[in-house]
Amino acid sequence: MGHERPTVPPAMELELVTVGTELLLGSTLDTNASEIARTLASVGARVVRRATVGDDGKSIRDAVGDALSRTGFVITTGGLGPTHDDVTKRAVASLFDAPLELDQEYLRKLEERFRALLRRPMPPSNRSQAEVPRGAVVLRNQRGTAPGLWLHGTPGTVVLLPGVPHEMRHVLAEQVVPRLRKEIEAREDSVSVTRSRTLRTTGIAESALATELEDLQSRLAPVTLAYLPGFEGTDLRLTVSGVSGEEARALLDRAAGSLRPALGAHCYGEDDTDLAAVVIDRLRERRMRLAVAESCTGGLVGARVTAVAGSSDVFAGGVICYDDPSKTRDLLVPAELIATHGAVSEPVVRAMVDGVTRRFDTAAGISVTGIAGPTGGTPDKPVGTVWLCARVADSDRAVVRRLPGDRDEVRQRSAQAALDLLRRSLEGFERL
Amino acid sequence: MGHERPTVPPAMELELVTVGTELLLGSTLDTNASEIARTLASVGARVVRRATVGDDGKSIRDAVGDALSRTGFVITTGGLGPTHDDVTKRAVASLFDAPLELDQEYLRKLEERFRALLRRPMPPSNRSQAEVPRGAVVLRNQRGTAPGLWLHGTPGTVVLLPGVPHEMRHVLAEQVVPRLRKEIEAREDSVSVTRSRTLRTTGIAESALATELEDLQSRLAPVTLAYLPGFEGTDLRLTVSGVSGEEARALLDRAAGSLRPALGAHCYGEDDTDLAAVVIDRLRERRMRLAVAESCTGGLVGARVTAVAGSSDVFAGGVICYDDPSKTRDLLVPAELIATHGAVSEPVVRAMVDGVTRRFDTAAGISVTGIAGPTGGTPDKPVGTVWLCARVADSDRAVVRRLPGDRDEVRQRSAQAALDLLRRSLEGFERL
Repeated sequence: MGHERPTVPPAMELELVTVGTELLLGSTLDTNASEIARTLASVGARVVRRATVGDDGKSIRDAVGDALSRTGFVITTGGLGPTHDDVTKRAVASLFDAPLELDQEYLRKLEERFRALLRRPMPPSNRSQAEVPRGAVVLRNQRGTAPGLWLHGTPGTVVLLPGVPHEMRHVLAEQVVPRLRKEIEAREDSVSVTRSRTLRTTGIAESALATELEDLQSRLAPVTLAYLPGFEGTDLRLTVSGVSGEEARALLDRAAGSLRPALGAHCYGEDDTDLAAVVIDRLRERRMRLAVAESCTGGLVGARVTAVAGSSDVFAGGVICYDDPSKTRDLLVPAELIATHGAVSEPVVRAMVDGVTRRFDTAAGISVTGIAGPTGGTPDKPVGTVWLCARVADSDRAVVRRLPGDRDEVRQRSAQAALDLLRRSLEGFERL
Repeated sequence: MGHERPTVPPAMELELVTVGTELLLGSTLDTNASEIARTLASVGARVVRRATVGDDGKSIRDAVGDALSRTGFVITTGGLGPTHDDVTKRAVASLFDAPLELDQEYLRKLEERFRALLRRPMPPSNRSQAEVPRGAVVLRNQRGTAPGLWLHGTPGTVVLLPGVPHEMRHVLAEQVVPRLRKEIEAREDSVSVTRSRTLRTTGIAESALATELEDLQSRLAPVTLAYLPGFEGTDLRLTVSGVSGEEARALLDRAAGSLRPALGAHCYGEDDTDLAAVVIDRLRERRMRLAVAESCTGGLVGARVTAVAGSSDVFAGGVICYDDPSKTRDLLVPAELIATHGAVSEPVVRAMVDGVTRRFDTAAGISVTGIAGPTGGTPDKPVGTVWLCARVADSDRAVVRRLPGDRDEVRQRSAQAALDLLRRSLEGFERL
């Protein structure tokens, strides 16, 4: 029944309760939950369970109460806004038997905010946001009108965060993390911790990876290994528990050090490392600029690259050559080449990278042309067939991939595979 | 404490348990949960609570057991793979007191799959995937090696789905939905349902929307209204419970019908409607083709447009003019214009749309230039300042926006605002 896990608790264990009927309906993705977990992990706190409930008082009260009975520490998101479906505050206050009281100072700030930033009087519906459970600490929210709250008392500690992602992120970083860090540091000397590290791989299937690492895996103990496949590749998560913070670091260093050589070119970084950011770093080191020519990805590769802050000193731009005339007009791909081999072919992908690097006068280039589906596939070139090419100085490498999944997945995987092809070329790996 | 909710149950209520320590750590976004909820909502089943637990047997058993005691019907994702951290099957089987038995037929299929598709022998680690709890129905997974399972017995019904998104999606659609639909249809004649509909708005703040709809809202009963703000705008979710399927449809039609005029140009569609898909439909109706010129969005607008299947008959392509030379060379924006007004300015955004529609010979165009941050802001043009322009035939509209959030949010909001500007122009709305 799986590997044994150490039973010693980490520095801090807590539960998350995300509130919002929209999260249950699935119309909104719960990005807050994963972001909070990542942020907390970085200070040594571990989310051990998560629940999502709708916008009604009883469900919220039950879920937060259950979670408090297990860990004594709960973070909630959502249900703090001015509209009448926002009920988290009252539900949690009732668990603490804390009446709501109007915080005059916060009300004044709220009214000021509307005057100064939004240039209109505060709607009456926002007044309820200035009501605070007795004894709660108000966590300032500079990005919006709903403050966070920190309640500490008989059933435990509950931190209420707003549900709007950029407001949540801000209150978490500015107000919650410093308070948690202090609490955890006080505990860490005496208590053992749980720490994880992730090695990110791409271009190899989960099962192939597992077979390759089978022997090595047993020698990693007490560090455990988990395989997390996704569009971007398979992440390897190393975890160790029940030791001091310093020992954890050393054990993870050792385990990562023994895995890295086995992973070779497949591993592009650790933890949150984004492949586009790695590519940008490598280009910067070699003082090369990049241009992209995108057909089936339609701008995704450019979007990935420019998502990285500071990419402008490396990234020149690109051409989205979605129709065939654009390939010929803007990238000088000979029309006969397209007529003879098809737009999804090695000669065309090579001509595309040549055209775009000439146009943008860059030393590095990426080109992508493929069949994302759902239509357009043929027996020879089924949906998922994608040709990729990467140029580094005077050397081009072109490969074809058969990528699984629906249109969205094929496109995401294509962008990742294209970035990876360029990375391997930049890092001098022979084997693709 | 918020509005009253009807207490009559919908056709089917169930809970979701997603398994994976990576979900708790936040390194992986739980897209399965929202996708399952959306799919189930479409057949009239409602997810009333969700829990996420790590890859250990006890947590899984506890969470599934708790959920069964509340609703008697649970769907799980994750923990079915061949690697040794995949323990969901054993944990759930133990709740049913069902021993695992090797399914010879499935084992043979699995071995065949490795031979035929993956062209290598099956690793021994995959053998455990052919073990099935006694009495369980095997739900075929054509996209991967982990089958889904359907257990029905004393504590209730549990459906186990693989965690890899495209495999989960496939098993859910092909195997689970038809079975659920049958069960629900049998119940619906006698039992009341819960139904929701979403009106999608953009270009107006949640609180402004709430103020505008304040009077109308009270007249919608028994339909309730929730505000769901996000990067793409604010969704309005209409919900009605405790009536028959037919009555629900009629009530939602009436409520949507009375809201639509009040929302005017701000509403671009219902439910899952994507703004890019609306833009493509409008362009197709008017037989116009589209080209995009992107600076700060770096390809995001093109990626949004080409994410829509069938966009190729409308979308010609675009230029990612990330650096200034590209704006001049590829889009013929006069260098003096950039020098005088800056790259983020009305004259430049207008010249960009002109240049890209001429280059691609299209009747419609979008251009975007802005400061996504974190650096590059000035007192005059702070981070979040974005100029957008949309061309429809011989008419251009340029607007400036101050968008909130970090780099990623500013870019996402920019792409949405650019698409919306074009939509409003295509639909002939005067007011922006």
